Amino acid sequence: MTLLEEAIQNKNTMDQEAMAQARRRWDSIAKPLNSLGLLEDYLVQIAGITGSSEIAVRKKAVAIFCSDNGIVEEGVTQTGQEVTAVVTENFSRGDSCACIMAKQAGAWVFPVDIGVNGDLSGYGEFQAGKDKLKRLEEGLADLGEGAHTHPILYPIWNRKLARGTRNFVKEPAMERDLAVHALETGICLAGLLKERGYGIIATGEMGIGNTTTSSAVIAALLQAEPELVTGRGAGLSLEGFKRKCGAIRAGLEKWQPDPSDGIDVLSKVGGLDLAGLAGMFMGGRLYRIPVVADGLISLAAALAAERICPGVKGFILASHMPAEPAGAMVLEALGQKPLIHGRLCLGEGTGAVALFPLLDMAVSVYHEMSTFSQIQVEEYQHFSD
Amino acid sequence: MTLLEEAIQNKNTMDQEAMAQARRRWDSIAKPLNSLGLLEDYLVQIAGITGSSEIAVRKKAVAIFCSDNGIVEEGVTQTGQEVTAVVTENFSRGDSCACIMAKQAGAWVFPVDIGVNGDLSGYGEFQAGKDKLKRLEEGLADLGEGAHTHPILYPIWNRKLARGTRNFVKEPAMERDLAVHALETGICLAGLLKERGYGIIATGEMGIGNTTTSSAVIAALLQAEPELVTGRGAGLSLEGFKRKCGAIRAGLEKWQPDPSDGIDVLSKVGGLDLAGLAGMFMGGRLYRIPVVADGLISLAAALAAERICPGVKGFILASHMPAEPAGAMVLEALGQKPLIHGRLCLGEGTGAVALFPLLDMAVSVYHEMSTFSQIQVEEYQHFSD
Repeated sequence: MTLLEEAIQNKNTMDQEAMAQARRRWDSIAKPLNSLGLLEDYLVQIAGITGSSEIAVRKKAVAIFCSDNGIVEEGVTQTGQEVTAVVTENFSRGDSCACIMAKQAGAWVFPVDIGVNGDLSGYGEFQAGKDKLKRLEEGLADLGEGAHTHPILYPIWNRKLARGTRNFVKEPAMERDLAVHALETGICLAGLLKERGYGIIATGEMGIGNTTTSSAVIAALLQAEPELVTGRGAGLSLEGFKRKCGAIRAGLEKWQPDPSDGIDVLSKVGGLDLAGLAGMFMGGRLYRIPVVADGLISLAAALAAERICPGVKGFILASHMPAEPAGAMVLEALGQKPLIHGRLCLGEGTGAVALFPLLDMAVSVYHEMSTFSQIQVEEYQHFSD
Repeated sequence: MTLLEEAIQNKNTMDQEAMAQARRRWDSIAKPLNSLGLLEDYLVQIAGITGSSEIAVRKKAVAIFCSDNGIVEEGVTQTGQEVTAVVTENFSRGDSCACIMAKQAGAWVFPVDIGVNGDLSGYGEFQAGKDKLKRLEEGLADLGEGAHTHPILYPIWNRKLARGTRNFVKEPAMERDLAVHALETGICLAGLLKERGYGIIATGEMGIGNTTTSSAVIAALLQAEPELVTGRGAGLSLEGFKRKCGAIRAGLEKWQPDPSDGIDVLSKVGGLDLAGLAGMFMGGRLYRIPVVADGLISLAAALAAERICPGVKGFILASHMPAEPAGAMVLEALGQKPLIHGRLCLGEGTGAVALFPLLDMAVSVYHEMSTFSQIQVEEYQHFSD
């Protein structure tokens, strides 16, 4: 059985007993019932995912999938393809918005080169060595606030499967086999992070042109008109926006991806970052580790993952409502309500990382707050009227 | 000139130059324009409030106004009035949801007894002594993450103006003079916190019955039907909800508060916590320090403050969309869009405190992130089409 088959065939479901225990804990805490709203729900969900009401998410990871997209040829972006490699290298030096926010949240960043069109000279996994890498990661956990003042080097995980995808207006973005390989890469990395002791993973991405592939994937999976699920990406002109919608329409008409087959959609009009992310969501279910969705691109991958492997959506935590129009549609399709409504559209995992300190606050209340019996006040009652 | 007159007559406006500088800083940072959405807007607003684009909000305060409400006699709450004093004392021991979240956010809590009906034996301001208090506060800032593991005692600020208000179904909640006194108490505390070096204040409250006074104040100020602006508070039964709406309607009909006169509204159907909070918002403008609104009760006070002192709203930071129905109405009246949509309804300042780590993330990116020229990538362009 391949790893992909294992992920698809496993029937992990939310642990109802752990969820009930977590809800019982919330109800016993000295505060009005459900008064922390979504913050309570997130922790109940995490209990269901991990199978334990002992919420342990202190060690946090941000996995940023980086790759290039052939569709850039069609003039659908404001910046050139070379920016993908530049920014991926910047991740390795901690010099990106996501890295700065992750440092603030006490999370460790894993840039993953799954398909960047260029040789990355940044700080690599092999340069670091396994032992050093382990010490670095553990160091962050121990340094605490002090870590914020230290320069941090994040080794780039070299999982390059190709030098970008093809232009899907002319050819399918990639072979089905390559999409499967990318999915398995994501599944595998989720397992690796779980083994290294991480309790939660935020998803991020970097790849010039990946709002185009995301909108194409969403249009295919939801069978929606491209204009309804396409935005201006990183500051596109009106002219560029029209080209973007036109390219998506052309790709969908030419390759007719099968909406019931998420792998077909990812391979024909998606990208390596999207497939890797979809795999990571599937790995979240297989290995019972919560994976946090970020914005539009991450959500497109989550939707594909749910299509490939129904039931994955319960193992995904929503973080924010994306600024791009398709975000609300995908969140609804996944039955998810995000906590943050900030018109964020930076990508890189920034929205997912923003959820971390709020989860930490909720976890502190969950573990530390007195119960009604401890402060000798009567519990609130549930009313169903 | 009284302090209230000073607050009303000062014509502080947002510093446009500082706001433009902050916006320029955001635009120069290597990321798509406006891609951190509301997080960018918050920092631009803080620049306008403080008059400086050097955003300095590391030292954070949470001011929790505690008081009792005579309206509780009417059976509008699920718990008894004695709970106000119990919970206020718990604040002084750091044992409350708001305190735990504040500790996580590195914020110092100031419980203010502005009208609790009972003698508080908790850890008081005078027990602490001014010097020790100062060391304690500064200690938190220096301890950093270590502080999270230390027990914390928060001295209660004794500003008790009365032992609760009167039942507004039978009498006006308080004399106009008392409301003025409470407003000045809030203004004064904002100034004191600014002097002690705090860069931002989250507002919180504790007072059994204060969702009833808040809905009454909002109904009066927005001239809305009580049923439209009243919720179930902390888990009220349907029967209790009807009593609550009935009490609000009775009070408004009997005392006919003048909707153009915020002080009249606060004194007839409001509370000492609400008046104190309204004063704190006014103090935010007078002393140029950002004050963060919390949920329904804090927003009712913000609305009253804006009515008393037009222009205050620009100096208020919204934090979250309250679960109670009137929240969205008040936020719209104040022209505010909150970042967090979590169905929070705990009060105590929990929603306002939840904004702090997100602001910290934004501040880190604002100060630490490279600019386009530093990473040698071309800036994004603004398009107006």
